Amino acid sequence: MSENKNILVGQSGGPTCAINSSLAGVVETAHIKFPDSIVYGMLNGIQGLLKERYVDMADQVKSSLDIELLKRTPSSFLGSCRYKLPEIEQDEETYKKIFEVIDKLEVGHFFYIGGNDSMDTIKKLSDYAKKIGHACHFIGVPKTVDNDLMITDHCPGFGSAAKFIGTVTKELIKDALVYERKTVTIVEVMGRNAGWLTGATALSRGSDCAGPDMIYLPEKAFDTEAFLNKVDALLKERNSLLIAVSEGIKLADGTFVCDIAKSNEGTDAFGHTQLAGAAKVLADMVKSKFGCTTRAVEINTLQRCASHFASATDLDEAYAAGAAAVRKSFSGETAKMIVLNRMSDEPYLCGTDAYDINCISNLEKVVPEGWICDEGTNVTEEFIDYLRPLIRGEVTPYMDDGIPRHLSLKL
Amino acid sequence: MSENKNILVGQSGGPTCAINSSLAGVVETAHIKFPDSIVYGMLNGIQGLLKERYVDMADQVKSSLDIELLKRTPSSFLGSCRYKLPEIEQDEETYKKIFEVIDKLEVGHFFYIGGNDSMDTIKKLSDYAKKIGHACHFIGVPKTVDNDLMITDHCPGFGSAAKFIGTVTKELIKDALVYERKTVTIVEVMGRNAGWLTGATALSRGSDCAGPDMIYLPEKAFDTEAFLNKVDALLKERNSLLIAVSEGIKLADGTFVCDIAKSNEGTDAFGHTQLAGAAKVLADMVKSKFGCTTRAVEINTLQRCASHFASATDLDEAYAAGAAAVRKSFSGETAKMIVLNRMSDEPYLCGTDAYDINCISNLEKVVPEGWICDEGTNVTEEFIDYLRPLIRGEVTPYMDDGIPRHLSLKL
Repeated sequence: MSENKNILVGQSGGPTCAINSSLAGVVETAHIKFPDSIVYGMLNGIQGLLKERYVDMADQVKSSLDIELLKRTPSSFLGSCRYKLPEIEQDEETYKKIFEVIDKLEVGHFFYIGGNDSMDTIKKLSDYAKKIGHACHFIGVPKTVDNDLMITDHCPGFGSAAKFIGTVTKELIKDALVYERKTVTIVEVMGRNAGWLTGATALSRGSDCAGPDMIYLPEKAFDTEAFLNKVDALLKERNSLLIAVSEGIKLADGTFVCDIAKSNEGTDAFGHTQLAGAAKVLADMVKSKFGCTTRAVEINTLQRCASHFASATDLDEAYAAGAAAVRKSFSGETAKMIVLNRMSDEPYLCGTDAYDINCISNLEKVVPEGWICDEGTNVTEEFIDYLRPLIRGEVTPYMDDGIPRHLSLKL
Repeated sequence: MSENKNILVGQSGGPTCAINSSLAGVVETAHIKFPDSIVYGMLNGIQGLLKERYVDMADQVKSSLDIELLKRTPSSFLGSCRYKLPEIEQDEETYKKIFEVIDKLEVGHFFYIGGNDSMDTIKKLSDYAKKIGHACHFIGVPKTVDNDLMITDHCPGFGSAAKFIGTVTKELIKDALVYERKTVTIVEVMGRNAGWLTGATALSRGSDCAGPDMIYLPEKAFDTEAFLNKVDALLKERNSLLIAVSEGIKLADGTFVCDIAKSNEGTDAFGHTQLAGAAKVLADMVKSKFGCTTRAVEINTLQRCASHFASATDLDEAYAAGAAAVRKSFSGETAKMIVLNRMSDEPYLCGTDAYDINCISNLEKVVPEGWICDEGTNVTEEFIDYLRPLIRGEVTPYMDDGIPRHLSLKL
């Protein structure tokens, strides 16, 4: 069959600050290099595509200003989904439906911007295309604040989250230092299995800030007794401690720290088990043991959507990944994910390439053992050297009377 | 007795993004206009002064760069305290001690940057000076994210907090919109008695964002049934709701919403009553009633220390308030607080003046009844017109390899 020339792009999984910059990279590159191709944006990812919900991106992005606004807009411009495609053998109908839409729209290039599950989608769709001999190209564009995709040096979205986390950790440390009383602040950071984001709290360290007193990643078993002993020792030296923990820290027996409270059957006003976060559980523990003031701070959703303070390096690389997807697909590649290849730290040099999706989908990259130190309470200089270039540079928001302006979907 | 020429300045109460800008205003104005006066900074406010802990600000701030860094440094540069002076009749010794230090350092001008309790300190110290015939001048410089001081149009520190809250509310709304499922996000904002900060979530409204679906301030009794009915009705219209609530919202009988959970004796792993925030309590309630996805987001400490995104108007006014305190004191005023006088909204014109401390200390300004609308679920355009000028302008942080740089105390 003949090659279709149109493009279909979607976004999937949790939003980030950078996912729309990748979309901008796809759209602008296609509009400039392949002006005869229509770029369709699927709404709410594959789930929306199955209902034939899509837009023509030319109606959404009409100027350079729109492109710049799109780059600075947090969350998924096209909407997202958490939808895992069935195995081909179990439910071929779903695939038939998707390829019907692909053919109807004359799509030859399919881009999906997302994390692990999205790469599974690219893998399955390219497998199916191969099976039925369909010429459509399928390329994944990496996106995840969790930074847990294989092969790529790092993931677009991670740098901006790391920059925000490093910055607010520094601000929280300053805030916690003001009183003379003993205070323990526990900051909880996203990351169920991988501690990349929690390690980014170490970026607060510098000549004007001591950084967190301890950092606990989910890669190492959490030892409650050692933790309390270290808090005790440090409280004798200074008034204010700040401790960073991943939401996913676990005891040696596999129990999540955030689940410890469950065992005592604490319930809320409606009879539900109260699920405190790991920070809250540890703050209560410290308060109970030492009687000092404690504070549990969840950086929560803000760490993935604070586009008002995004990393310029991150948004540029996210854009480049989108642009590379278009170039690679039009040069004949399929069943690949765009990866970022770091060539050097100082000066920081990083390029894009495309890599076999089968080596990436459904795998998870955690922080290397050698980058965790001080008996699991800190990260090494090597970790920080890895992080540093990813947070460099600021992206000035386009301000509208004191508040950042975003690009909105026009339906 | 002869007039002392030196200056003593302190910071008290909760930190903000702007409190160090007021300190910069005091220090730079004094150094330029009254170069013969030494500016002492008391460490940890009055509490530190009683232990004779202070620094010479000339050792801390040595260049224009230091002044600019100080303005951009969150939290209280000199440390803070929560210390309420005793009544003069009950404990004259404390006053004698303070005035001993004042005389020892030859201080003729005493500035205290803080909120309500700090203004009480200024009132009592000036009362005592009058009683003993001491010539030292006492001037308060307003500072509070809560914006609840009387007489002044608004308080330094509030504008930056409002800008951050408006911005992250917008980012959270975008983040919550991406999925097709029914989702209710409840955002909790600081403000035990006054809803100024919670009202600032309305700043997210614009041509590119619908803003919060409901806004609940502590000034109005919270009606649980009406709340659930409104959630029900809105969920029939759209997928994603975002509701902003003050931490201090109360039922008509005076029970804090955050205390509702207590009645069921929910306890944590250590037998403590779990104090969930108001957002968590309401999110649980909505989940229980409607079964939809809910998310409770506390903006928490970040709203008062996010100096990486401060309002230029706020930092400028905080500086101007510090500078005005020096000028007023040297022109003979005492027992006053600096107030901001707004002369017009558009163009925004605002000046400084000094006002009798007795009309300010120990009083609290809440949001006027007329600025709350839609049966207590929204704020009026008048409220937003009041807020808007206070968040205008950005202050670019001085960046150090991707992270904002601050000024640190040298001891």
